[in-house]
Amino acid sequence: MSENPLQLLMNPKSIAVAGASNTPTKMGTIQSLSLLKDGYAGKLYFVHPTEKTILGITAYATPQDLPEVPDLALLIVPIKAVLSLLEDFGKIGTKRAIVVTAGFRETGDAGQDMENKLNEVARRYGIRFVGPNCLGVINSQICLNTTVYPFPPNPGLLGLASQSGTYVTQVLPMLRKKGIRFSKAISLGNEANIDIADALEFLGADEQTKAIILYIEGIRDGRRFIEIARKVTPHKPVLAQYVGGSVSGARAGMSHTGALSGPDFLYDGIFKQAGIIRVGSVEDLYDHGWTLATQPLPRGRRVAVITNSGGPSSSISYTCDLVGLEVPRFSAGLQEEIRKYLQPHAASANPVDLTFHMGMEKLAVTIPEIIIRSGEVDALIMHGIMRSGFLREIYNHVSDYIKGASFEEFLSFSEPVIKEVFELPRKYNIPLIISSFFGQEDSYTKGFQENNIPVFHSPEKTARALGALYHYKLIRERKPGKENPLPKISPLAVRILQQAKKNGQKALDEYTAKKLLAAYGLPVTKEKLVKTQEEALEAATKIGYPVALKACHWQIMHKSGKGLIALQIESAAKLKVAFKDIQKAAGEKVPVLVQKMLAGNREFLAGMTRFAGFGACVVFGLGGVFTEIHHDATIRMAPLTAADTKEMFADIRARKLLDEYRGMPQVEKDKLSEILQTIGNISLLHPEIAEIDLNPIIISGAKPVVADALIVLEG
Amino acid sequence: MSENPLQLLMNPKSIAVAGASNTPTKMGTIQSLSLLKDGYAGKLYFVHPTEKTILGITAYATPQDLPEVPDLALLIVPIKAVLSLLEDFGKIGTKRAIVVTAGFRETGDAGQDMENKLNEVARRYGIRFVGPNCLGVINSQICLNTTVYPFPPNPGLLGLASQSGTYVTQVLPMLRKKGIRFSKAISLGNEANIDIADALEFLGADEQTKAIILYIEGIRDGRRFIEIARKVTPHKPVLAQYVGGSVSGARAGMSHTGALSGPDFLYDGIFKQAGIIRVGSVEDLYDHGWTLATQPLPRGRRVAVITNSGGPSSSISYTCDLVGLEVPRFSAGLQEEIRKYLQPHAASANPVDLTFHMGMEKLAVTIPEIIIRSGEVDALIMHGIMRSGFLREIYNHVSDYIKGASFEEFLSFSEPVIKEVFELPRKYNIPLIISSFFGQEDSYTKGFQENNIPVFHSPEKTARALGALYHYKLIRERKPGKENPLPKISPLAVRILQQAKKNGQKALDEYTAKKLLAAYGLPVTKEKLVKTQEEALEAATKIGYPVALKACHWQIMHKSGKGLIALQIESAAKLKVAFKDIQKAAGEKVPVLVQKMLAGNREFLAGMTRFAGFGACVVFGLGGVFTEIHHDATIRMAPLTAADTKEMFADIRARKLLDEYRGMPQVEKDKLSEILQTIGNISLLHPEIAEIDLNPIIISGAKPVVADALIVLEG
Repeated sequence: MSENPLQLLMNPKSIAVAGASNTPTKMGTIQSLSLLKDGYAGKLYFVHPTEKTILGITAYATPQDLPEVPDLALLIVPIKAVLSLLEDFGKIGTKRAIVVTAGFRETGDAGQDMENKLNEVARRYGIRFVGPNCLGVINSQICLNTTVYPFPPNPGLLGLASQSGTYVTQVLPMLRKKGIRFSKAISLGNEANIDIADALEFLGADEQTKAIILYIEGIRDGRRFIEIARKVTPHKPVLAQYVGGSVSGARAGMSHTGALSGPDFLYDGIFKQAGIIRVGSVEDLYDHGWTLATQPLPRGRRVAVITNSGGPSSSISYTCDLVGLEVPRFSAGLQEEIRKYLQPHAASANPVDLTFHMGMEKLAVTIPEIIIRSGEVDALIMHGIMRSGFLREIYNHVSDYIKGASFEEFLSFSEPVIKEVFELPRKYNIPLIISSFFGQEDSYTKGFQENNIPVFHSPEKTARALGALYHYKLIRERKPGKENPLPKISPLAVRILQQAKKNGQKALDEYTAKKLLAAYGLPVTKEKLVKTQEEALEAATKIGYPVALKACHWQIMHKSGKGLIALQIESAAKLKVAFKDIQKAAGEKVPVLVQKMLAGNREFLAGMTRFAGFGACVVFGLGGVFTEIHHDATIRMAPLTAADTKEMFADIRARKLLDEYRGMPQVEKDKLSEILQTIGNISLLHPEIAEIDLNPIIISGAKPVVADALIVLEG
Repeated sequence: MSENPLQLLMNPKSIAVAGASNTPTKMGTIQSLSLLKDGYAGKLYFVHPTEKTILGITAYATPQDLPEVPDLALLIVPIKAVLSLLEDFGKIGTKRAIVVTAGFRETGDAGQDMENKLNEVARRYGIRFVGPNCLGVINSQICLNTTVYPFPPNPGLLGLASQSGTYVTQVLPMLRKKGIRFSKAISLGNEANIDIADALEFLGADEQTKAIILYIEGIRDGRRFIEIARKVTPHKPVLAQYVGGSVSGARAGMSHTGALSGPDFLYDGIFKQAGIIRVGSVEDLYDHGWTLATQPLPRGRRVAVITNSGGPSSSISYTCDLVGLEVPRFSAGLQEEIRKYLQPHAASANPVDLTFHMGMEKLAVTIPEIIIRSGEVDALIMHGIMRSGFLREIYNHVSDYIKGASFEEFLSFSEPVIKEVFELPRKYNIPLIISSFFGQEDSYTKGFQENNIPVFHSPEKTARALGALYHYKLIRERKPGKENPLPKISPLAVRILQQAKKNGQKALDEYTAKKLLAAYGLPVTKEKLVKTQEEALEAATKIGYPVALKACHWQIMHKSGKGLIALQIESAAKLKVAFKDIQKAAGEKVPVLVQKMLAGNREFLAGMTRFAGFGACVVFGLGGVFTEIHHDATIRMAPLTAADTKEMFADIRARKLLDEYRGMPQVEKDKLSEILQTIGNISLLHPEIAEIDLNPIIISGAKPVVADALIVLEG
């Protein structure tokens, strides 16, 4: 495997900036100041057509004039200068660049041309670059910061790749208040050259980065992205926010990075398949990411909630239940031990509520340690640990009554900070998350943040972040699915598809579609294609009543509701009527499929659709006539493993329908899994198939049987 | 209507505090300091058994010694002193009290006894009180603050009633940072006397309060609460967080206020019925509450998103779509007008993305005004308006290059704050919500907050808060449902229920249940109860095949999956077999119901359950054999109006099944509505009915027909 292009780009020994000036409020200058002031120890050069020095440093007229070949070129120049400058850097041998300049693909066709040319230049000189239309990168390990916001030298653990520059820059002051610190952060811009898959691969291999967060508006090479993600997520958590899945979200994304997006449904499925945790807001992205970057994984889902107040106790416990965690009732023995330290009216069952008081030892250390040692929980959430924040609140009120003591003196009268609480996660290898309404003005909030313990300002957030941590534990425990080799291509299937193409068909008729499916071993209904009433009667006798009759022609893709289908025909007399009705509804002579009518109340669907970048994706869900009502389906990228299909079964709301239910036996899930895997394989073997739609798949007894099939061909 | 007890309690002209001392770190003292220092202008007295002065003010040994009868007594004394003190205050004629002291109902039976006694004393003397086990109240209008946290004299617009004291107190520093200010806030504690319904009524009538937020762990008198809420919500928004609906949430609530809770499903339904907006976190409670308290209602759901960056543009737009808002593409004319002020690569279609720059005029005023005047939107969300926050960020970097200018000088070089932006909501009567990653260190954040324009630190929050505002607009537009008088009680129904009681039945058999339902006009299947095969054959001939056979006895409450039911019997031969099979499965001679088998794929359910405090509640949902799989139902408190049932129809996920679907006609919704209303009425007329379960209600053609019915009787 070749080295990731970001390896050098994020660790340059020397950087040349083109586009800085001596005007301190210009973006190029502010970005250069970040390089100059935030502690980057490498060489820094300026290229400027006219200025002799910039920010006190010698400037060179062209890249050719530089005293050495810089590892990285940072281009913040006007768009008309970008191409020739990149070429100049290429000529001297610079291999990495960041193109901050905007005005490319996001502006339309002319911009796209320009972006293509940029890529041609890069290819010619072996340059790999981030951007254009980006805000640069941060590598806290070497104090490298090319953005407009300062990044104090305080290396973190959270790696970010973002398709929006704002989420690398404008958020920094807020993240500082939250105590959240990046290891590396990359503003990807238009991804003309280096893309989000490269960034994911780089962060996945980066030792400093303990968790990865991704802000995504659209993924171009979905297949590669998923392949990389599947390698990263078993050893490092990856969280993603995806905002391209709605009409307005997609329009917004298109307009500024020209990103291609897909439906939410698709991203939900492929994120699950790849072990990526999806979040719904940029705040969750940072909060949950920071939790996953800093806290040890819980052994299980049992949470102790320890507070100084009933409200947060309840809010946290309620939210724990919602996100799949458990707040178990403590054993009598443990409660007895805890009660020694509680007021009589305080709660000990879990949540433990010490009620409001200012002695922190019990709340922060004594009781937590008793609980941890009991082995009855796997994680801790605490609320109410505070000192200077609260004392500052009341100081103005009490100051008249404490002999004019200053705030610092007043503070010194109170219990000192109990530092042992900061050690709990490390000492016991147990995750700890803090709820507090105080920011860094409180000594404990500050202490927790400095010790990489997440502090959130809404009780529910602690439970949701812990839920994400537990979610990752489950991802980590997933057994990797074994990828089976593709089956041998079926000569019959090839013939069917060639013939259809020759006929100019846009789809296969149901009968032929099922022949193709059967060629790959899929279970289909017993059926016969007939042209006359006599043939129909003969076929029905052979198949056995009840039967279904269906008009069968490739141009009839959707039969339901048009009189082209008759179900549950119990007798020859009824068959005759039905046959006539169908011919009448069709308006012309149409071949008719005589089909065994299956008994079975449970109906599922399976299908395949191709998405740009992702290729063939397989859908599974609740089927039958009410498909659009229930809207209960899930999707994965082909090929599927048995592990994938197992997760798909668990994904749908109606999952219990696959088990024993009201006297119906458990569905043969291995058979259903084979159907899904085979659909994926057929799609990979036959790219001329555009879509597959098997609906319903009737569960006959315990066996899934394909009762209707549509195969649409590529235009 | 008698005056709300909180009217006087929240507006006392004089207060006596029992439980303060001269130790400034005791809770009672800190609470008294809040009264002393936060600007309360009424009289303040202390009652203390030994001290002569407290905090420099004369103290009296007993209430009897006080120079006047205080309007309000604030009791923070040890639990053993509470009863006698309240009695003493009662004797002198004080009519309102706040009992802060804990240790009552929340501690168990002995505490419950004590609480009952407290109420007896109160009743005897006509005292109404808040608490016990509470943290007091805030009335910002008269600078009244009885809590342990200071509340600066800065009256707000948001009214809170909370079953947790923390959400009235510990949150205050955080709310200050957010610019969120209470009008009134009430910590309800155990609600021994004044309860959440009283608080809601009080806040509903309070002119200063523009929106009401409720933190709820459980409601005791649900029926009264809903009645009051229904009166308040048409003119004032009410938001609620409910945390008692999960196992752990309920346990947590029980432990500290002894609150009774009900399932989420119930609260979801009754909140909707009452026009209360449910939120999922205390943060949303404040954020959305503040938005509803401060912003004018939008005329529609069209939002303009105006930003300086693509990321927030996308996140906000995506979230708008999620919460039912729309980010419409602007007309070509409007885009053209906007584009005059944009860089070539900036987006104008909506979202409008000006891309990063520091001139605020266009972003904050020029473009918003063009958009507002176009009439193409109903609300604005803006991101990227900033000044001192950003300049502070870069000041340290640029300070060397600006001739040693101080930060204030540096600030003065830049564009001044454009104050017109603060006027937009008032000037154009249009809601405005701001997304910013800066707190009050930024001049704009501060300005917005001072002008009651909500600022949120995560872009998605703006969209969600606006979603709540739009949601309230829809609530406001609800047509009030007309309550019909209860129907006349049916003598037949009375006889049936009396007979069943006499027989010691715990339920009615299906046949009798349907007779009862039919007596109130409900449409039920054509059917006959038979004892022998011969009678069954005769009945089937009369009813017409196909028929269903069902074992029919009150002890057989659930027939499915036990061989006690045979459907779709097409012939006499099959009926004979089925009849025998049922008798065999029953193990004894059992009456059999011969029932017309209805054709119809669509199956719903209706039912009734009684909940403590709420009484009879009616359920509607998707029915049939897969009821537990789909789990798609909704609930309302009886009696129901036609408007209630209309909302129930819209509530279920499968709502489209009520319309025309795949050749099936639209369901006769008025008939279905009547069924639901009638179930409610039957439940109110016959309290001896514990539960009703009609499942399935088959849609035969377009008509709903009750095909199975279970009526369970009160034990």
